[in-house]
Amino acid sequence: MTIVKPLNHEDASPRARAVFDDIKATRGVPDVNNFWKSLAHDPATLERIWANLKQVMAPGALDPLTKEMIYVAVSIANGCEYCSASHTAAARAKGMNEAMLSELVAVVGMACQTNALAQAYRPAIDPQFLPK
Amino acid sequence: MTIVKPLNHEDASPRARAVFDDIKATRGVPDVNNFWKSLAHDPATLERIWANLKQVMAPGALDPLTKEMIYVAVSIANGCEYCSASHTAAARAKGMNEAMLSELVAVVGMACQTNALAQAYRPAIDPQFLPK
Amino acid sequence: MTIVKPLNHEDASPRARAVFDDIKATRGVPDVNNFWKSLAHDPATLERIWANLKQVMAPGALDPLTKEMIYVAVSIANGCEYCSASHTAAARAKGMNEAMLSELVAVVGMACQTNALAQAYRPAIDPQFLPK
Amino acid sequence: MTIVKPLNHEDASPRARAVFDDIKATRGVPDVNNFWKSLAHDPATLERIWANLKQVMAPGALDPLTKEMIYVAVSIANGCEYCSASHTAAARAKGMNEAMLSELVAVVGMACQTNALAQAYRPAIDPQFLPK
Amino acid sequence: MTIVKPLNHEDASPRARAVFDDIKATRGVPDVNNFWKSLAHDPATLERIWANLKQVMAPGALDPLTKEMIYVAVSIANGCEYCSASHTAAARAKGMNEAMLSELVAVVGMACQTNALAQAYRPAIDPQFLPK
Amino acid sequence: MTIVKPLNHEDASPRARAVFDDIKATRGVPDVNNFWKSLAHDPATLERIWANLKQVMAPGALDPLTKEMIYVAVSIANGCEYCSASHTAAARAKGMNEAMLSELVAVVGMACQTNALAQAYRPAIDPQFLPK
Repeated sequence: MTIVKPLNHEDASPRARAVFDDIKATRGVPDVNNFWKSLAHDPATLERIWANLKQVMAPGALDPLTKEMIYVAVSIANGCEYCSASHTAAARAKGMNEAMLSELVAVVGMACQTNALAQAYRPAIDPQFLPK
Repeated sequence: MTIVKPLNHEDASPRARAVFDDIKATRGVPDVNNFWKSLAHDPATLERIWANLKQVMAPGALDPLTKEMIYVAVSIANGCEYCSASHTAAARAKGMNEAMLSELVAVVGMACQTNALAQAYRPAIDPQFLPK
Repeated sequence: MTIVKPLNHEDASPRARAVFDDIKATRGVPDVNNFWKSLAHDPATLERIWANLKQVMAPGALDPLTKEMIYVAVSIANGCEYCSASHTAAARAKGMNEAMLSELVAVVGMACQTNALAQAYRPAIDPQFLPK
Repeated sequence: MTIVKPLNHEDASPRARAVFDDIKATRGVPDVNNFWKSLAHDPATLERIWANLKQVMAPGALDPLTKEMIYVAVSIANGCEYCSASHTAAARAKGMNEAMLSELVAVVGMACQTNALAQAYRPAIDPQFLPK
Repeated sequence: MTIVKPLNHEDASPRARAVFDDIKATRGVPDVNNFWKSLAHDPATLERIWANLKQVMAPGALDPLTKEMIYVAVSIANGCEYCSASHTAAARAKGMNEAMLSELVAVVGMACQTNALAQAYRPAIDPQFLPK
Repeated sequence: MTIVKPLNHEDASPRARAVFDDIKATRGVPDVNNFWKSLAHDPATLERIWANLKQVMAPGALDPLTKEMIYVAVSIANGCEYCSASHTAAARAKGMNEAMLSELVAVVGMACQTNALAQAYRPAIDPQFLPK
């Protein structure tokens, strides 16, 4: 259930429209996702999140696909259905095939299992894991 | 605080020792981490988790370093200190440098932020995200 | 998907009806929400949760709106759709406008981001944070 | 266990030092917390997070103390020890007394309880919660 | 929203069908749940998870119903709707009546509340909790 | 790091002392745990939580040991170290042996794994899981 009604281009403020336009130009898409339309009620947050995302997801020491797959993995671990769906679609667009998705999901499941085992037994952290 | 005392080689059962030996041989390390020593009280689980991990983390459609970085990301999102520390060390051993770690962490933080925004506003999932 | 069918007034036990009546009288509403109708299968829990909620959410050192906004924030962080929706409605009824909701959500998102960064890097807790 | 060694002023890059200086000037403190010293390995993230935080936590429709208490509540719900400690200290500095902290914590606990009950029984979301 | 289309028997690979057949025979059911049909895209994971589940949920020091109720409790705490629904059904099939479900849910809610209080106040762990 | 200093009997208010006395009498212990000493700063919450806990954990449709094990499982899933440690000790005192603990932990780990897989693939909930 949506908490706020998404704003389309015609209902959004000029400040929100400018962000919409930049998202569409950057991604080469005809319209923005509902996520951005929900944020449009709060143009300052819309601007900030989009600027953050562009910076964080830009190519750097990690390539964009690896970053996108990490995003999917975290979204699954956090149980966020919207972000799992949207970032899985983004990762597919960047080259993730179904075999890669399967392995990504298997790693997430395995990590959640051993995270639980470690949280249960609370072993002391081994000294070799310390930063040099 | 540990919930069970880790078992060293000399205190572990033959079944647990066999797993310890396989971990050491596979990884080329002189001893196993405290995580495995905690699991050694339950040899069936020790065997199962190690067999699972070998299968899931093996090279496949994703390379081992990408898998390890996904493991780190999920462990951070789940707040598991032990697994964050141990898998960060493993990822460094597989080639993750500090710039890559910084970007990984930035992506995790960004995903947690937008996961929260999406969980707050609950936008409807866009039809283009549906599997074909 | 509901796990138990919500009980309406006519199907609820006398003990559950008494709680329904108190909720309706306290809140000045014609019917109780589905949350309470689900709890009605377990009158002891229904009574306990309602009594707890009245105590915890009463005006005190914090005003009711601030408490309600904290409730919304925690429900978002926990990913609970029902409670996010119901407590957002409650907060709006107590005076939260859309600008306040936007800022609340932005703070939740920011907190989730820096929580993840701190869980990633695990800085030592600074001595000035210790209670005096 | 820290994953990266915090950087002090003398070891930080000029770009990180500039952020440190702005934090110290803005907050009127002689040194920055360990959180910022950990982020200093990644000056782009350090700059981005500090700029975000200044924007999000500025006075607006909600006053700074209310924002800080929401931050504390989310940090507790996420189980982040560092952020709970640092933002509790910040909230105290902005006027939160011990009675207010007690009530904040009681609300967080109550929300976590009813979140779990709602996640268990999954009642349908009542139509009156829909945005108008 | 499903991320991958579930595979029915006729669309699944021989390897996936063999697991489907074993699930149906073990459980005495005419078809497998959608969970397994989703995993069928990745036969290695399908096999592994089913083999794990058979081992972990087998009668041992804990009886199958107790294990199933623990599974339900964790699924609720993690906010997983699918697993809460499927394992609640499984627990009912193994003898959990509605009074038992009510008490299970009340315990989960109570644990989430005191977990939050303990995460807020962070009391030192008492020495008597240490393993002998 | 504790956020508030635990209060011992001599520093607690008469209202808090009365709860301490009831805990000690009910459990037959010479002193209360640090959890209760932290809550003693807020006698209303101390009273409420203790009354809740006595009600929820009393023998009913589920026996006290099963309830305690569910409490441990949820505390592990939530990553609460204090509650995992204290309720594991309580479960041991009520008859949980090490084999039972091992199986409990294995079930928690398995549930966290399949929760993640279900949150990843989001299969539709099967109609047979619906309440009758």
